Amino acid sequence: MIRVSVIGANGYTGSELLNIFRLHPEVEVASLVSQSNNGLYITELYKGMHAYKDYKYEGVDYDTIINNSDVVFTALPHGASAEAVGKLISGGVKVIDLSADFRYNNIAKYEEIYKVVHPCKDIKGVYGLPEIYRENIKGATLVGNPGCYTTCSILPLYPLAITGLINVNNIIINAASGVSGAGRKAELSLNYSEVNENYKAYSVTNHRHTSEIEEKIGEAAGVDVTIQFTPHLLPVQRGILSTIYLDLIKGVTKKDVENAYNSYYGNEEFVNVDHNGNMPTLNQVKYSNYCDISYTIDNRTGRLIVISALDNLIKGASGQAVQNMNIIMGIEENTGLINQPHHI
Amino acid sequence: MIRVSVIGANGYTGSELLNIFRLHPEVEVASLVSQSNNGLYITELYKGMHAYKDYKYEGVDYDTIINNSDVVFTALPHGASAEAVGKLISGGVKVIDLSADFRYNNIAKYEEIYKVVHPCKDIKGVYGLPEIYRENIKGATLVGNPGCYTTCSILPLYPLAITGLINVNNIIINAASGVSGAGRKAELSLNYSEVNENYKAYSVTNHRHTSEIEEKIGEAAGVDVTIQFTPHLLPVQRGILSTIYLDLIKGVTKKDVENAYNSYYGNEEFVNVDHNGNMPTLNQVKYSNYCDISYTIDNRTGRLIVISALDNLIKGASGQAVQNMNIIMGIEENTGLINQPHHI
Amino acid sequence: MIRVSVIGANGYTGSELLNIFRLHPEVEVASLVSQSNNGLYITELYKGMHAYKDYKYEGVDYDTIINNSDVVFTALPHGASAEAVGKLISGGVKVIDLSADFRYNNIAKYEEIYKVVHPCKDIKGVYGLPEIYRENIKGATLVGNPGCYTTCSILPLYPLAITGLINVNNIIINAASGVSGAGRKAELSLNYSEVNENYKAYSVTNHRHTSEIEEKIGEAAGVDVTIQFTPHLLPVQRGILSTIYLDLIKGVTKKDVENAYNSYYGNEEFVNVDHNGNMPTLNQVKYSNYCDISYTIDNRTGRLIVISALDNLIKGASGQAVQNMNIIMGIEENTGLINQPHHI
Amino acid sequence: MIRVSVIGANGYTGSELLNIFRLHPEVEVASLVSQSNNGLYITELYKGMHAYKDYKYEGVDYDTIINNSDVVFTALPHGASAEAVGKLISGGVKVIDLSADFRYNNIAKYEEIYKVVHPCKDIKGVYGLPEIYRENIKGATLVGNPGCYTTCSILPLYPLAITGLINVNNIIINAASGVSGAGRKAELSLNYSEVNENYKAYSVTNHRHTSEIEEKIGEAAGVDVTIQFTPHLLPVQRGILSTIYLDLIKGVTKKDVENAYNSYYGNEEFVNVDHNGNMPTLNQVKYSNYCDISYTIDNRTGRLIVISALDNLIKGASGQAVQNMNIIMGIEENTGLINQPHHI
Repeated sequence: MIRVSVIGANGYTGSELLNIFRLHPEVEVASLVSQSNNGLYITELYKGMHAYKDYKYEGVDYDTIINNSDVVFTALPHGASAEAVGKLISGGVKVIDLSADFRYNNIAKYEEIYKVVHPCKDIKGVYGLPEIYRENIKGATLVGNPGCYTTCSILPLYPLAITGLINVNNIIINAASGVSGAGRKAELSLNYSEVNENYKAYSVTNHRHTSEIEEKIGEAAGVDVTIQFTPHLLPVQRGILSTIYLDLIKGVTKKDVENAYNSYYGNEEFVNVDHNGNMPTLNQVKYSNYCDISYTIDNRTGRLIVISALDNLIKGASGQAVQNMNIIMGIEENTGLINQPHHI
Repeated sequence: MIRVSVIGANGYTGSELLNIFRLHPEVEVASLVSQSNNGLYITELYKGMHAYKDYKYEGVDYDTIINNSDVVFTALPHGASAEAVGKLISGGVKVIDLSADFRYNNIAKYEEIYKVVHPCKDIKGVYGLPEIYRENIKGATLVGNPGCYTTCSILPLYPLAITGLINVNNIIINAASGVSGAGRKAELSLNYSEVNENYKAYSVTNHRHTSEIEEKIGEAAGVDVTIQFTPHLLPVQRGILSTIYLDLIKGVTKKDVENAYNSYYGNEEFVNVDHNGNMPTLNQVKYSNYCDISYTIDNRTGRLIVISALDNLIKGASGQAVQNMNIIMGIEENTGLINQPHHI
Repeated sequence: MIRVSVIGANGYTGSELLNIFRLHPEVEVASLVSQSNNGLYITELYKGMHAYKDYKYEGVDYDTIINNSDVVFTALPHGASAEAVGKLISGGVKVIDLSADFRYNNIAKYEEIYKVVHPCKDIKGVYGLPEIYRENIKGATLVGNPGCYTTCSILPLYPLAITGLINVNNIIINAASGVSGAGRKAELSLNYSEVNENYKAYSVTNHRHTSEIEEKIGEAAGVDVTIQFTPHLLPVQRGILSTIYLDLIKGVTKKDVENAYNSYYGNEEFVNVDHNGNMPTLNQVKYSNYCDISYTIDNRTGRLIVISALDNLIKGASGQAVQNMNIIMGIEENTGLINQPHHI
Repeated sequence: MIRVSVIGANGYTGSELLNIFRLHPEVEVASLVSQSNNGLYITELYKGMHAYKDYKYEGVDYDTIINNSDVVFTALPHGASAEAVGKLISGGVKVIDLSADFRYNNIAKYEEIYKVVHPCKDIKGVYGLPEIYRENIKGATLVGNPGCYTTCSILPLYPLAITGLINVNNIIINAASGVSGAGRKAELSLNYSEVNENYKAYSVTNHRHTSEIEEKIGEAAGVDVTIQFTPHLLPVQRGILSTIYLDLIKGVTKKDVENAYNSYYGNEEFVNVDHNGNMPTLNQVKYSNYCDISYTIDNRTGRLIVISALDNLIKGASGQAVQNMNIIMGIEENTGLINQPHHI
């Protein structure tokens, strides 16, 4: 059994981890840490989680966690997460960090975007997007788990960028996310009456995830890239859908695109590419670890339009985190993640 | 022109008043007061209210308000409202108070329920439910505007209680309200992710509006009554629907019920009783000042089941407030209130 | 491995069965029958069900089904279901029937309510509510799986009725259900624009499930009972919540109620009774096989108010069906059903 | 008083016209035609429209309509609408046609896109987008009322295209609409359970409104243009929001964009341009006749991003239709259209 703990277990990604652990036959939950809910039962926050009825949120005690855990999931704000990770790694446990702190190769860029000084620059994580970086993840001690928008952008773009099929200087990502992406908190702008029956763009031209996407797609393309990324807030609880507008390099055919995707995802369980233009919907990914992708070439405009969808709390956060854990622990990659989407 | 001001203009009832004033040909908006938003433009809170683009929220200045206003709508928390009302009344303006402070005849009951000492017991308001108390409202200086659940309960019950058709000691009101009833505020329990796709009862056995309903129905019946009232939170923005279970007095017929309702509401524009058992829906009242009612007698159980619906922000708050203003100012009662519901 | 088939696999209960089978380690899916979708891939209706990508809907062929299945789930309209069940039972397979056809002991009542002649009166099913009828279900060949409203009503009422704590002639159930209960179909009244932001009662005084509840509670009480049952349509996808108003028999205490529930559900995994009046919400049961219950005694009115909640597609249909299968096949009752609710 | 009739009065645009007529002091409703609902009361479809309680849907009788109407609104399917319009125009009434039949200058393009032979090519309508074509509309007999997506696209694009500020060969419109745009009908894909908590693109690369946008923007630019238009379905009832990606011509400044918008909309009541990048939301336009627009120049990518929002049933259909009627009848353009948006 793998002994796992979660630091920052009270939020939506934390509760989703508990959902997944329940279906994971090789996981044993050790500590669920939430400083602000220290001493409360899990079921006081998530009333229906009867399988966890004996668990309480604990305060942070690194010695205890290091002793009772093989793997720790950290779900803390950026900066704070890096500090926790430093202590955990030096204590010998493996860490899956869900913050932005270990996602970047370019620390200066991270510090510019997140407006902090990185507290432990000497610790390096591997980027936890298994379908692209699986070999790096095997044997890693620290995984920087990708952001939700990022996963939904890199998965459709990477195979096209690395094979040179698209003009990487003209990428437009129009993305839309459910409200759970904003986290579990009291905020007027998240009040039901403000969100329901509404729809809006936000962080236009300056969303933080842009730089994370640019770094990875730039690595694939071998050049620096600048990407247009526009997120929108959907009146739904979960899910991200990205509509991506691309210029194909002259002479590239639909078959080339198909081959690029097949070479990367042809054997992947969690990334499903439909080559017939049946564009994905949120319904077909919600509550699963899938990222579904489809595309079409518009003969009128010459553009390649790619649409990708995933559940922001699962493939965009907690599901991918467990997928990474499975890889570093050397067990079947889909363990605990086989449930199908709930269409309704 | 009637010069009107609103104290507490930043909330949802305040914004709904602005919507109604816009359609009211005899109203001129004087001051929009919100201490916490003092100096902000209305359009900073409600971006699309372009007709009010020159208005700013003001701080509380009673002299100014008394000078520039004929009627003031107070939408403040209980207790605070009564203090403001005291000053306004002594300044000679008429007041429609949307708080609970002037709804009760029994001040001791008010103080018990709201856990405050009433700051100006000597000032008496009339209860602003026009279809029942219209004659009292004419010429009044101060109107205590009824609560939303209360309006949706008293309107269907009053004609039955006063004519002795029902057992007033066995009244069960199962009510459900949209989220706007909780007001415009940051609160985790009102976060979209917590409310959407959810439904729950709250304040079971002890909701404050219970006592307000009991006082008025008790007056109608001529005896003290104790009512079972159970509110629920619906994942909708507006609307209240009450499903009411009643015991008919032996021998009472459907015709008696029909007559009771007709004698009260037969000529009312805003209360519509369907005698064929077409039970009302929220769709048919949203965004209007209507309260729709229907009923059926269950021959198997002998019960009379009455269902009523209204828009909590309009007939349950701001629409009724303007209806009261129209009455006290002696103009057509439906002025500014003629818009039809938006089914979708 | 248990070889299972589903007849009527295209609807929401059918798709939910597939979700559960995916998590059930002892199930092997044989035939998925849908006459109207014969030849289509499952993934043409439920695009994201990639684990079933090789499965097609089949037409009805009883010989095939009888040969390849140990257990068949029938999810057909009433009447049609009974005919199918007759053939399957005579072929020697075990059947979990999700229609109303085998839920009643009193066939005349069934025929009156459903307005059909029962096509195979000689076949008897056992009523598939495991927490009450587990001993009957063990070893059964045919299970009549209870209705969704019914499960959410009988579970909270049965222990109170059988122990004589309540007046069974004064039971009022005010229930509300999500839209998936109406099934997967094109219907104007189910159009998003008609349902969203709406709420309404329907089938007031005459919903079919009333008679099913009355039969079982009548058996518990040992007398015929007549129950007031009022269903409402909620703008949510899944979930049922029942608010139940009861008269306690004179002298009954809170401790008596607690004991009654504990004696029935104290050791049950799927029925959770909270004795502190923390009333259940839909959030705490969605996507799980749980039925959560709480209650309070109103000292002002003397009534016992009980609230119960479950997921209509799981504990109210497919989850309970698999629970029944597990019992009749002699395996752990919670197999495939351990997932926790998704709070969001 | 202007005597108005509606043909196709049963749909959502028809009901929205009734909402507007109710607030329009110079309108008198003559005939409400719906062949399929002939003889039913309006209140049988839209229960809460008590102001229309004496109106019934009528069958089509052109003689009657021509006699009792000054202006007729036709809301029929394309092709059918043109036939009705021919008869009405020859009878001497003025017509506002809400179908696509009279929106195109290029009839061949219309026929290609809508796959019909235009039944009365000799009748010409003027394009009913008042902020651009007001002078043409004055004195017109027949107005082709623009599509909803079209209005939300042309209003933000026209001033930029006609002043040559953008590269018209690289326009990408990523649009999202509420469900009411699909009309009032029974359809599985519109079932609440299918739409709610979902989001998806549809008609990618081939939505009909694309050609309508291309014609008008091509006229503005003086060259043929090909536009990338991608509609998405939002789980909301009403509203359209378009996120538009544009290449600025080299040397164009923010001031140039501001001037272009000011010269067109500086004095317009219903089109509001925010020059500070406060991007519009659906909340700020719902239930109003406003189209709100804002924009930002992304210095990293050099793109101009413009976002526009409107209520698809009002500025995108019925509100604009009444605005057109007001113009052709020579009355104040905002008559009946002054209500403010309902933020919630």
